[in-house]
Amino acid sequence: MVGYSSSGPTADDMKTIDDIKNTEPFAVKVADSVGKNRIAINIVWTLICGFLVMFMQAGFAMAETGFTQAKNAGHTMAMNFMVYGLGLLGFWLTGFALQMGGAGPFATLGGGATMNGEFTISLFGKEFGLFGTKGFMLGGDAYDAAIYTMFLFQMVFMDTTATIPTGSMAERWTMKSFIVYALFISGIVYPLYANWVWGGGWLAKLGTNFGLGHGHVDFAGSSVVHLTGGMAALAGAIVLGPRIGKFGPDGKPRAIPGHHIPMAVVGCFILAFGWFGFNAGSTLAGSDFRIGVVAVNTMLAGGAAAFTSWVYMWIRYGKPDISMSANGMLAGLVAITAPCAFVTSLSAVIIGSIAGVLVCVSVFFIERVLKIDDPVGAISVHGVNGAWGVISVGLFADGVYGDAFNGVPGTVKGLFYGDSSQFVAQLVGTVTNMIFVFVVMYVFFKVLNLIVPLRVDPELEVEGLDQAEVAVTAYPDFQTRHSHR
Amino acid sequence: MVGYSSSGPTADDMKTIDDIKNTEPFAVKVADSVGKNRIAINIVWTLICGFLVMFMQAGFAMAETGFTQAKNAGHTMAMNFMVYGLGLLGFWLTGFALQMGGAGPFATLGGGATMNGEFTISLFGKEFGLFGTKGFMLGGDAYDAAIYTMFLFQMVFMDTTATIPTGSMAERWTMKSFIVYALFISGIVYPLYANWVWGGGWLAKLGTNFGLGHGHVDFAGSSVVHLTGGMAALAGAIVLGPRIGKFGPDGKPRAIPGHHIPMAVVGCFILAFGWFGFNAGSTLAGSDFRIGVVAVNTMLAGGAAAFTSWVYMWIRYGKPDISMSANGMLAGLVAITAPCAFVTSLSAVIIGSIAGVLVCVSVFFIERVLKIDDPVGAISVHGVNGAWGVISVGLFADGVYGDAFNGVPGTVKGLFYGDSSQFVAQLVGTVTNMIFVFVVMYVFFKVLNLIVPLRVDPELEVEGLDQAEVAVTAYPDFQTRHSHR
Amino acid sequence: MVGYSSSGPTADDMKTIDDIKNTEPFAVKVADSVGKNRIAINIVWTLICGFLVMFMQAGFAMAETGFTQAKNAGHTMAMNFMVYGLGLLGFWLTGFALQMGGAGPFATLGGGATMNGEFTISLFGKEFGLFGTKGFMLGGDAYDAAIYTMFLFQMVFMDTTATIPTGSMAERWTMKSFIVYALFISGIVYPLYANWVWGGGWLAKLGTNFGLGHGHVDFAGSSVVHLTGGMAALAGAIVLGPRIGKFGPDGKPRAIPGHHIPMAVVGCFILAFGWFGFNAGSTLAGSDFRIGVVAVNTMLAGGAAAFTSWVYMWIRYGKPDISMSANGMLAGLVAITAPCAFVTSLSAVIIGSIAGVLVCVSVFFIERVLKIDDPVGAISVHGVNGAWGVISVGLFADGVYGDAFNGVPGTVKGLFYGDSSQFVAQLVGTVTNMIFVFVVMYVFFKVLNLIVPLRVDPELEVEGLDQAEVAVTAYPDFQTRHSHR
Repeated sequence: MVGYSSSGPTADDMKTIDDIKNTEPFAVKVADSVGKNRIAINIVWTLICGFLVMFMQAGFAMAETGFTQAKNAGHTMAMNFMVYGLGLLGFWLTGFALQMGGAGPFATLGGGATMNGEFTISLFGKEFGLFGTKGFMLGGDAYDAAIYTMFLFQMVFMDTTATIPTGSMAERWTMKSFIVYALFISGIVYPLYANWVWGGGWLAKLGTNFGLGHGHVDFAGSSVVHLTGGMAALAGAIVLGPRIGKFGPDGKPRAIPGHHIPMAVVGCFILAFGWFGFNAGSTLAGSDFRIGVVAVNTMLAGGAAAFTSWVYMWIRYGKPDISMSANGMLAGLVAITAPCAFVTSLSAVIIGSIAGVLVCVSVFFIERVLKIDDPVGAISVHGVNGAWGVISVGLFADGVYGDAFNGVPGTVKGLFYGDSSQFVAQLVGTVTNMIFVFVVMYVFFKVLNLIVPLRVDPELEVEGLDQAEVAVTAYPDFQTRHSHR
Repeated sequence: MVGYSSSGPTADDMKTIDDIKNTEPFAVKVADSVGKNRIAINIVWTLICGFLVMFMQAGFAMAETGFTQAKNAGHTMAMNFMVYGLGLLGFWLTGFALQMGGAGPFATLGGGATMNGEFTISLFGKEFGLFGTKGFMLGGDAYDAAIYTMFLFQMVFMDTTATIPTGSMAERWTMKSFIVYALFISGIVYPLYANWVWGGGWLAKLGTNFGLGHGHVDFAGSSVVHLTGGMAALAGAIVLGPRIGKFGPDGKPRAIPGHHIPMAVVGCFILAFGWFGFNAGSTLAGSDFRIGVVAVNTMLAGGAAAFTSWVYMWIRYGKPDISMSANGMLAGLVAITAPCAFVTSLSAVIIGSIAGVLVCVSVFFIERVLKIDDPVGAISVHGVNGAWGVISVGLFADGVYGDAFNGVPGTVKGLFYGDSSQFVAQLVGTVTNMIFVFVVMYVFFKVLNLIVPLRVDPELEVEGLDQAEVAVTAYPDFQTRHSHR
Repeated sequence: MVGYSSSGPTADDMKTIDDIKNTEPFAVKVADSVGKNRIAINIVWTLICGFLVMFMQAGFAMAETGFTQAKNAGHTMAMNFMVYGLGLLGFWLTGFALQMGGAGPFATLGGGATMNGEFTISLFGKEFGLFGTKGFMLGGDAYDAAIYTMFLFQMVFMDTTATIPTGSMAERWTMKSFIVYALFISGIVYPLYANWVWGGGWLAKLGTNFGLGHGHVDFAGSSVVHLTGGMAALAGAIVLGPRIGKFGPDGKPRAIPGHHIPMAVVGCFILAFGWFGFNAGSTLAGSDFRIGVVAVNTMLAGGAAAFTSWVYMWIRYGKPDISMSANGMLAGLVAITAPCAFVTSLSAVIIGSIAGVLVCVSVFFIERVLKIDDPVGAISVHGVNGAWGVISVGLFADGVYGDAFNGVPGTVKGLFYGDSSQFVAQLVGTVTNMIFVFVVMYVFFKVLNLIVPLRVDPELEVEGLDQAEVAVTAYPDFQTRHSHR
């Protein structure tokens, strides 16, 4: 830890002024060090924010496990745990290259090495970027600090998407098919849509190509991360079908309460904590002072949503519901993820307030009307509010931030601030996501089911999946109900 | 995430030296970028530290829930969860403006926009600042990165205060009255005292106005945050009264053990982790190298206190008590919060060591002599040790740090280093807090109780509050004792 | 929090260009501020990474408690909790001075004050540094921001070592002897080996003294932290002996399942989160862009190891085991800790993949062949993979990084890249650690056992240690099995 020197100039170089003066030209060296400091600030910021996003995995694991049954607690934990390792490998092998292979150099992070291979097709006389072609296994030119830093940040975002369906598909999914799923979504599906929006692909170019605002604008991933996860969660829940006993013979849903509410609530706190990294880190630059606004909007939307779902349940059902408010806070955080950099704090409160009601309405609609069993409400939290989030950019963006975003001159403005074309760009990106992700994942799950069955045997499902699927009993020293140990 | 430019110069501006040289004057642009880097470092530092403080909410939730009963675990979690959302709204609506509305610009954070409205009165020919008048809902000029960053940092501090009474008032408080409380303390009470100490109000001016040291000095909130929370916790516990069964017919207290010790201990770890942000972040500047000393003093005081409470209980009761040592560490952290920047590591160990004993003595005194039921020891941890913390500044401050603090020339020195007037300033601030907060909160709770009853029905209290108050059963799959599910 | 000025120039100094220009010489002040910014970036980075490492204590506490029995949950938590407070005091009193007392100034952190007292002996005509002699209780010249920052970072590393044996010695260790142990390892044993590798001691000088590569190279502590902890864990487990009932009359091991798998898995997540600080923070410089590569290698090795242990158990025992994969991820993280800065991402995946298999094989070997009872697999995770980690540096280091590391010109290269002497240096350090730490700790535990018995009474062990040793019942409101409450 001591005794080595970094490749760049160190603090010492700057400390002894006389030494510096003897170096010619003095001013050039100073200016170079200033630039290096700037890059250091940005790498430090991006990495730490990435670490926080990685920690969200623990939050997802706790929220999902707490909101499901004790007899499957080991299995739900295991899915959330293994999706991190599997996602890492899938994203390292192919995902990162497909997503960002054409998007370098990454200027705020120093961006020395080039990653500029994007596969494009021509349509209507325009180039449509479809996926990147450089950076597989971080080899070759990709062995670079800026690119590695970018890999870390993008990987943990992808992993958020990958873990969302473990909520809607909990308590009945086989580990064998889960592994195939995890590699598929991390290595291929997520990276494609992410390329279109963040990798310089065709949705990012809706502005320069077709005059639709600044193209599809998603600051930190309401569509790229959450709507993608929500659509995959929807497809998976439909293909798997509801848990045994979820719907009675009359078709009416029955409550299957989560087994550990404190675990779930703490998980949501961890998610809210990591979300600061998620949103504010998406500047990829600590030198962009807007991070202060982003972080505050993030927390305000989450708080407002927790409050409105609290009030909604109180009015509608006679008492507030902490489970729903925990989900409500997540819904507000999902919704503010796309607009967080572009709106005032008042708009953030409004966006979050709507999200808090929306998640309640959606949870009941999906369960009671669509008859889909989503044990933790993942589709409502991430899917419905992911869509609401990107759409809200097209409404509330106030034109203060986002100069030259996606290569379009001027700042980002929504419908309420006079740019209806931005609203259209948001809708195009949303609809594209819903169709692309849902169709691909639905077909994938259907085909996979033929090769590796998605669903455990009914006896196992009734007994609990833990021993058979992941070789543990979650709580062997406790007397549990429902458990068939 | 890619494709936009921030409003300031980016790293690229600094990278191509030839480009820069062609800009005149070269040196001015370099110097400007150096200053911007400095601000970026400070914003990054303040935000990340603020995130850590926000995460303390999870620690409080776990510690309080672990130290109370299983039958109320959902309710205790819910109070700790909702106080974050409610506190956000209260602080955004009025709290921040009342606290900091006269304190800008915030120089270390860039401080472009002005927030300079302080309501003052004249007494003894001096101006006494009482509260700020700008920044409501972060509107107008307050839509600024420096101010938003300051909002985030101050909000999470306020929320620490707001959550402290949920410990002393646990297991019997109605959610309806809790909501009113949360808005009241976040929007009005906390901001007033915080204004007096941190917002440029009258306690901060005790030095310039009356020659009392540097005025009331509280680096990171032993009085502003913890004593305020402790006094509110005391008032609330008195008004609510003890839990049914806490005191026998003979008036002797009975132990009501916490239901989940691992949860409580992990909660305390999370608090100790977040406390680094709490104390070291209070420089509001990563460019202030003193952060290294602050962080080390913080950990040493916490460790020393955990050890002395360990030893105290061992000597006094024949065996150590991990519950008490967990509280002991918190007590040490509370105590070092005010002096952390002004003392040597040896003083930090002494301050913490005393805190560790103090919390044990106080817990028994409050329970056995005052007959007040404080389920988690919040009054002793935050109230008693908050007072000890600010007073210890007046004793141990060594004159190395705090030049021109609160506008008084020279550094901060305590009694042991020759400045008895600083000790007086600490006492004035402490007594002011105890009287102001206790009286206001006692009256508030008494009046509120007439409109919205504070306490749940006795049957509900015996049965457990979870289903009736927050619509969950915390552990439906476990066989629990005491539970009347 | 407001109103003070830091000792250095503030952001304001840089903001008003005209003011600056009037200061002569302008360029010198700018350059000085650039250097100060650099130091600020590095202090901020080192502190935040140190905070993350401190948080790993919570991860250890959860993993170890989750993997042991409910009846000892309070005791296992208490050991993990108290080792932090005790370790702080031991390291403050003597440990830090013995380790780093001869290693200053710490250049990346500003390094004004000197700490240059190293006790050396002469052998073969060379100087062998054995321990430092300055900085006891952080007094005298050590009252300095750079040194305090270094103290924080080194302390939390030490504490990781100190907490490892609480895993292998869980469920039967007396608190009295534990306290002596904690002070001994934090104040003396750990600091000695750490001095030899990181404090400028003799293992660091194997390169300059004997031409063995760059001396023993351990970037972030596979040997210094993890192998040391693993060897102490081995010695302790041997001296204590297995838990009652662990081995049947036939000598065959019986499974004693962990009582809370979700707690254990979340603990591992927290460890993986904190490990980013552990490894990337070990640059002690955010200005060293290599941190991006370090962080990515860290996560990849952990993910790969989780996957290979998953697959190994599936092939070998017919189903994957989430307990083993959680340990597998830790094993991968331990292994990559030494080489993280020196290898490509492909090598990181290979190193991690091997670690994931190694931990499975080792766990069974230690239990079935050596008949040692290690309740949580600490010896396999930290000891075996710690050794594998430092050795892998001698194999995979690719010569891209580490210029002039330990004072040897050129970059660090392993056997596969042409430097077999580096491989030898790694072996020397590994064997030294294994002999030194094992012998010292074995003798220590043997002698201590004569004075303060290490092991609780058999009746107590059967009943559970919580009430007698740490005065709590971990789960009083739950119906537990095996419990004799």
